[in-house]
Amino acid sequence: MVSRRTMIGGAAGLAGVAAAGAARAETPTLPGRVFVHHVYFWLKAPEDPQAREALIGGLRKLAAAPDILWSHIGLPAESERGVVDDSYSVSWLVFLADKAAEERYQVDPIHLKFVEECSALWERVVVYDTQQVEG
Amino acid sequence: MVSRRTMIGGAAGLAGVAAAGAARAETPTLPGRVFVHHVYFWLKAPEDPQAREALIGGLRKLAAAPDILWSHIGLPAESERGVVDDSYSVSWLVFLADKAAEERYQVDPIHLKFVEECSALWERVVVYDTQQVEG
Repeated sequence: MVSRRTMIGGAAGLAGVAAAGAARAETPTLPGRVFVHHVYFWLKAPEDPQAREALIGGLRKLAAAPDILWSHIGLPAESERGVVDDSYSVSWLVFLADKAAEERYQVDPIHLKFVEECSALWERVVVYDTQQVEG
Repeated sequence: MVSRRTMIGGAAGLAGVAAAGAARAETPTLPGRVFVHHVYFWLKAPEDPQAREALIGGLRKLAAAPDILWSHIGLPAESERGVVDDSYSVSWLVFLADKAAEERYQVDPIHLKFVEECSALWERVVVYDTQQVEG
């Protein structure tokens, strides 16, 4: 089970992570704090469903990178609110143990292959790496 | 337990969420797909630890908003990589059930009170709302 340090104020904390990939341990649990790696992609052809599906397909393969604790592939929810940026094409949210894991992930062969296969699809990418504060 | 639909390709999926807040059910589980609401704040006084702590304190109270399934408060991990934006001050990552839950959260009294108490602290805020794709 996760330690109390995962809990943020009165918020719910992640109890654990179920493994689905063959390369994973059966029931890993998240560390006390998770490192959040969130990438937003803007496609060269944002209106082309094939380009979007190609990127999503690449991300599904990338999800097998061994340092990834949990991943989430998403599409923008449209909004009228000015503070909401819904101009990106695809979101890629990853939980990792810590910054060292993120650095390993960057040079993981699965990640390098993803970049090689998919980078021609996007014209812009923005990454936010975030370290969880102490609860 | 979470359904298979939470699983993304070969990636690990969230097994469940443990409740910590008094206002929460004891062991909520995440829906098949989660709605990700990720907010990045740029403080007016980014070098002022008191301003940062005030915002983090406000977010800890905001975490009690009833529609929040899970939340994560973070600080930027510095990076030399050009695609990484580490210029923000504080990250606020929230999981909600769906877009309707996000819309309720926006007008929740706890959220409105957070904005009232903390909005003077930031000069810029960017929000990315993301709907999970079908696994």
